[in-house]
Amino acid sequence: MTRFRLTVEFDGRPFMGWQRQAHGPSVQQAIEDAVHAVTGEDVVLHAAGRTDAGVHATAMAAHVDIAKAIAPFRLMEALNAKLKPNPVAILACETVPEDWHARFSCIGRRYIYRIINRRPPLTLDAGRAWRIAAPLDADSMHDAAQALIGLHDFTTFRSVHCQSASPVKTLDRLDVRRMGDAIEVEAAARSFLHHQVRSMVGCLALVGRGQWNAADLVAARDARDRAALGLNAPPEGLYFVEARY
Amino acid sequence: MTRFRLTVEFDGRPFMGWQRQAHGPSVQQAIEDAVHAVTGEDVVLHAAGRTDAGVHATAMAAHVDIAKAIAPFRLMEALNAKLKPNPVAILACETVPEDWHARFSCIGRRYIYRIINRRPPLTLDAGRAWRIAAPLDADSMHDAAQALIGLHDFTTFRSVHCQSASPVKTLDRLDVRRMGDAIEVEAAARSFLHHQVRSMVGCLALVGRGQWNAADLVAARDARDRAALGLNAPPEGLYFVEARY
Repeated sequence: MTRFRLTVEFDGRPFMGWQRQAHGPSVQQAIEDAVHAVTGEDVVLHAAGRTDAGVHATAMAAHVDIAKAIAPFRLMEALNAKLKPNPVAILACETVPEDWHARFSCIGRRYIYRIINRRPPLTLDAGRAWRIAAPLDADSMHDAAQALIGLHDFTTFRSVHCQSASPVKTLDRLDVRRMGDAIEVEAAARSFLHHQVRSMVGCLALVGRGQWNAADLVAARDARDRAALGLNAPPEGLYFVEARY
Repeated sequence: MTRFRLTVEFDGRPFMGWQRQAHGPSVQQAIEDAVHAVTGEDVVLHAAGRTDAGVHATAMAAHVDIAKAIAPFRLMEALNAKLKPNPVAILACETVPEDWHARFSCIGRRYIYRIINRRPPLTLDAGRAWRIAAPLDADSMHDAAQALIGLHDFTTFRSVHCQSASPVKTLDRLDVRRMGDAIEVEAAARSFLHHQVRSMVGCLALVGRGQWNAADLVAARDARDRAALGLNAPPEGLYFVEARY
């Protein structure tokens, strides 16, 4: 058995999410099927994060164990050929030690959330960003976001379906930047709760349009209650962009 | 009659091109149909450029004459509502004098051509960029491109279907920039021949991968012969980004 680390890019639109599901297509299944087509082996793919339906990735990290002797570059090329026409691509492939684990060895995860702040509907960015028509103050969003940095109980920002043992996490970075009518929120932590980034972004959007102020965000955080959540941002603006090891 | 100037963004993937055609959907028809739905009027939309099938725009300029009394902002909102689910959006709408013409008053047009230079297939950028697997030297491309600046007979870089009276045009700018694995070619001129940007980009790609040198590009230019064209770049990387008046 050789363990291969894969760096995966995908457009989340056609998928029910990363994780294999009985009732629809998933990124995991697309790649596992491609591995089977190349090697004849039934494999289980492990990833640094399990993204929801409609969420994208520019560099998801994953690993898979393969018995067949195959060079990493050949495996990457063969998987990319078999993955068509799915919008999933293997950007890099390398062998790793057998104790390297895409999920458990990961010491840092980074997401980008893209907002397009304009009235007209999206065309080229449809399904790839969250359009918000009301003007947003990105500086206020950035300033308010800093209250979420550090060690906190993120229960307010956690899906009721979250399976994490504890709601207490350390958030390393939550930056908000405007570039023209695009606003990017960058979030980095060792790990995130289910829906945490989308829930933080949803509340920051309320701050950006003046419905909430910075104190409201702190109060939501301190409530440690999902009912205190202002808004959960839709999946289409979210991108998994980095796993650190 | 009031003349309205429209700034139009569209994803070119589902369209046969800008211009109304009997055999398939066009951006022009989508907008003319939307105007009819809003005003009950049969109109003809004029544009700064007529893009090919698969070509995109972030800011195409167009105009239309409307008899019904309607404020520009209301017209924009109503057109955007009627344009759904077409990936076409009106980004701006304003009244202009009746002698203002989107095509004939235009004194400068600008395009961006996007190349993604990597082996793996495109996912998020599928249909929105030209993937080139072989490594490209963007600096060589930029340097060679400067030989096309100025007044030249661009017959080599002109479609055989081009309806322009003369193949002689002045090219103001042809810049090639690399940002990571993305390469952008920016082209600006008062006007372009049919397929001119795609033909220039195709030849620059040959320079970038070392199949052509700068002298080969000059020779192609001086041949004034479509048969001397090295390569016509595919439509999906091309974006109409600015019309100047």
